[in-house]
Amino acid sequence: LICPHFLLYMTCFRSLLTPVEVWNPTNQARNPHDHRRSTMAAANAFTSASMSCAPSLSGSVNVIAVCPRSVAAARTLSSSCLRPVRCAAVGTAAPVAATAEGDERRFEQLAVPPELVDELVEEALVWCSQHGLVVGDKNHPRSGKAPGVGLLHAPFALLPMSFPKVYWEQALELAPLFNELVHRVSLDGDFLQQTLARTKEVDPFTRRLLDIHSKMMELNKKEDIQLGLTRSDYMIDGATDKLLQVELNTISTSSNGLACGVSELHRNLIRHHQRELGLDPTSVVGNTAIAQHAEALATAWAEYNNQSAVVLVVVQAEERYMYDQYWITVALREMYGVTTIRKTMAEIEAEGDLRPDGTLVINGRPVAIVYFRAGYSPADYPSEAEWRARLLIERSSAIKCPSIAHHLVGTKKIQQELAKENVLERFLDNQSDIENVRKCFAGLWSLENDIIVNSAIESPELFVLKPQREGGGITSVSPCSQNVGHY
Amino acid sequence: LICPHFLLYMTCFRSLLTPVEVWNPTNQARNPHDHRRSTMAAANAFTSASMSCAPSLSGSVNVIAVCPRSVAAARTLSSSCLRPVRCAAVGTAAPVAATAEGDERRFEQLAVPPELVDELVEEALVWCSQHGLVVGDKNHPRSGKAPGVGLLHAPFALLPMSFPKVYWEQALELAPLFNELVHRVSLDGDFLQQTLARTKEVDPFTRRLLDIHSKMMELNKKEDIQLGLTRSDYMIDGATDKLLQVELNTISTSSNGLACGVSELHRNLIRHHQRELGLDPTSVVGNTAIAQHAEALATAWAEYNNQSAVVLVVVQAEERYMYDQYWITVALREMYGVTTIRKTMAEIEAEGDLRPDGTLVINGRPVAIVYFRAGYSPADYPSEAEWRARLLIERSSAIKCPSIAHHLVGTKKIQQELAKENVLERFLDNQSDIENVRKCFAGLWSLENDIIVNSAIESPELFVLKPQREGGGITSVSPCSQNVGHY
Repeated sequence: LICPHFLLYMTCFRSLLTPVEVWNPTNQARNPHDHRRSTMAAANAFTSASMSCAPSLSGSVNVIAVCPRSVAAARTLSSSCLRPVRCAAVGTAAPVAATAEGDERRFEQLAVPPELVDELVEEALVWCSQHGLVVGDKNHPRSGKAPGVGLLHAPFALLPMSFPKVYWEQALELAPLFNELVHRVSLDGDFLQQTLARTKEVDPFTRRLLDIHSKMMELNKKEDIQLGLTRSDYMIDGATDKLLQVELNTISTSSNGLACGVSELHRNLIRHHQRELGLDPTSVVGNTAIAQHAEALATAWAEYNNQSAVVLVVVQAEERYMYDQYWITVALREMYGVTTIRKTMAEIEAEGDLRPDGTLVINGRPVAIVYFRAGYSPADYPSEAEWRARLLIERSSAIKCPSIAHHLVGTKKIQQELAKENVLERFLDNQSDIENVRKCFAGLWSLENDIIVNSAIESPELFVLKPQREGGGITSVSPCSQNVGHY
Repeated sequence: LICPHFLLYMTCFRSLLTPVEVWNPTNQARNPHDHRRSTMAAANAFTSASMSCAPSLSGSVNVIAVCPRSVAAARTLSSSCLRPVRCAAVGTAAPVAATAEGDERRFEQLAVPPELVDELVEEALVWCSQHGLVVGDKNHPRSGKAPGVGLLHAPFALLPMSFPKVYWEQALELAPLFNELVHRVSLDGDFLQQTLARTKEVDPFTRRLLDIHSKMMELNKKEDIQLGLTRSDYMIDGATDKLLQVELNTISTSSNGLACGVSELHRNLIRHHQRELGLDPTSVVGNTAIAQHAEALATAWAEYNNQSAVVLVVVQAEERYMYDQYWITVALREMYGVTTIRKTMAEIEAEGDLRPDGTLVINGRPVAIVYFRAGYSPADYPSEAEWRARLLIERSSAIKCPSIAHHLVGTKKIQQELAKENVLERFLDNQSDIENVRKCFAGLWSLENDIIVNSAIESPELFVLKPQREGGGITSVSPCSQNVGHY
């Protein structure tokens, strides 16, 4: 999903390694410990890790961002006091500070003269245009409907910012644990139904998802092969100096395609201006999200074991971030020869069918994987047709990325429940894993909790109001929030 | 220069290898034969060759072209009888017919089902977006002013067309001969002045160029190092079955950057649909124009021998084909570490200066090469400031690409003069070279020739009316022209 604070997130996407996993219980031994090992092995095979941070938390960090509205705006920024920060990264000679050394050195500042900023901006914009770091321009009427028209450079930070190695490594370690947690929770249908029972009453969208989930439980539907392409978002909390999880996305995790480009862009700019900037291009952490996503999809496709089957990408009718998606599907074809087709939920309803053996077919083509890059928002279900499509997919033997259960695990309510005492213990075995996961939980409260509601009314700057929903631009942050400690 | 029939030309740009040469008389022996060898060696070093063809000449060839106006238009085309032609190329197993076998086999047709065309169009548009095969959208107000905004896929033919090997090789052989011819003619100042004397009276633009040229002759200004980036355009004449030269461009030859992308695009599409199309991706001739241009510029830059000097690209204030130019200048930096700066003629006038030793400096930076990607059209000289800039450049010791003399050699009037009896003999020594060059001359006549003017009034379909000027969209073709035999 596109992050609400997209510009800020893009700054850190250089370090995005999206967690990908494929589970195939049919290949596993019955011993739960074997199952555990199998899952972990898959996770490690994909070097899964995921992170993101909000530089605003440090209180002293600013970035020069090029926003699509106009280059002139970015140039104005360059003359002001905003300065990109010194780059630091994993395992290099670049300045990397331990947590104990505090914010000062951790987010070292870098002064860039305005004329160099102008030069960097031009180079960066040319690089974006030549290397597909592009999105559709919302001012162009067809930019979300067809590729190649109404293109605009993606929003990006002009230079990377430093990120302490200790948090980076912590996030790398957390990724497979969260992957396993998502999968284990998804297998406990009753837990999902019970935890979301009250949400169901007030949120029609979650209710529809739960209804499909119930139907699958009644049918005792088994997902023989499951594929998760998840993303865990973190912030560094200024007050506690901790890496805290903002949210865990289990459907339509996005920007993975474009994020790889941002890494390359930064490395390129620094390589050409190494002397002036005093930065080391090799200190920009590489991003292999595209290759990892393609590998995960190809592995799942191979498990499905039908050479003529395609990967069905569920898309919105208008998608200005289609290039982000194409980077992955093009890699899937180039690297593994796997064909993808793109369909909206409405098209799937019109063109899709189930064979008696459960195979999902679209216009006669069998589908190995349904890769949702839409379907996460109520807006994606404007009529009953789209819900019929979702049910059709769920009833099929196609691998769902995600299944309805995986999708539901991504709700805030489940995250909140998992943070309660003794709940993690239901899904994870290893005590040290449980502690590591719990350590990054920020407080989450529903509006049922009067004490918290009153506290938020008194100190709105300490809270972020988030809906169950996914998708960008729907998070409310108090205008006086300067140092968000809880959300 | 952007070809007037851009869509048609793009079809053939897969085979564009632009001729590039660097002359440095200071390195040459005094013997004219040594000079000749030196020039040829340089030409061969750059594997110079250049060609283009107009498929409409064959009478039976059509291409599916994707025009920027709308993808829908291309899809409509696909349902009609227009079909891309079978691909053939140099030195491959693809169908390549000798001249004697006639048009039938030479331009073999290929039927592509409409649904495959749709698939190819989507793939091609995604490829363009991801690989910088883009231009500025003329409907976007800032697309020509800054990179990264208002991008649109470049116009391209969906699949390549066959081109007989015999013509291809002929064009390859002609390239160094034309390069040498341009250079030899440019050294004969009196020939240029005399030949263009009457043009000077009626064409103020050519007059201004000639005035600068005269001044340089008076000053006995020598160009120690010369760089030519020329392009010779050809058509295959249906009536005579000959490869005939349309024109020879000596300034601002363009599309060299984008043309490389078109080759790659075609190869990519064919690789993915080899079976359905029955085509061999390796039969698409590779295009190394970007690397060759970068190498030529870098070689000239090295000859200038000032490590701190830059390449000055003369640009228009608004340039929707800036990406075509950036492909070359980015390669120049990536491959050779040479810095370029982009300036309009007006900016050069404002920021440029000559040091006592003749060094051109822009804002204090010495200039090794002035690479004109503007300055070819009267519109590029809206005031005296731009003419002062041109004179400043010409007076400097910077390498001009092209010099004023090279620029003048590109006028149609000079081409016309060279086609006259015994004129080539003044500039080329080898009789067989002279015959080869003359063989590709089409008839060129000025409007002074009453017999030809009357003939054109009687049979307008046989003629194309061209001005001395360079630049796209200024050639008049009779609406009833179907098989242009003379121009």
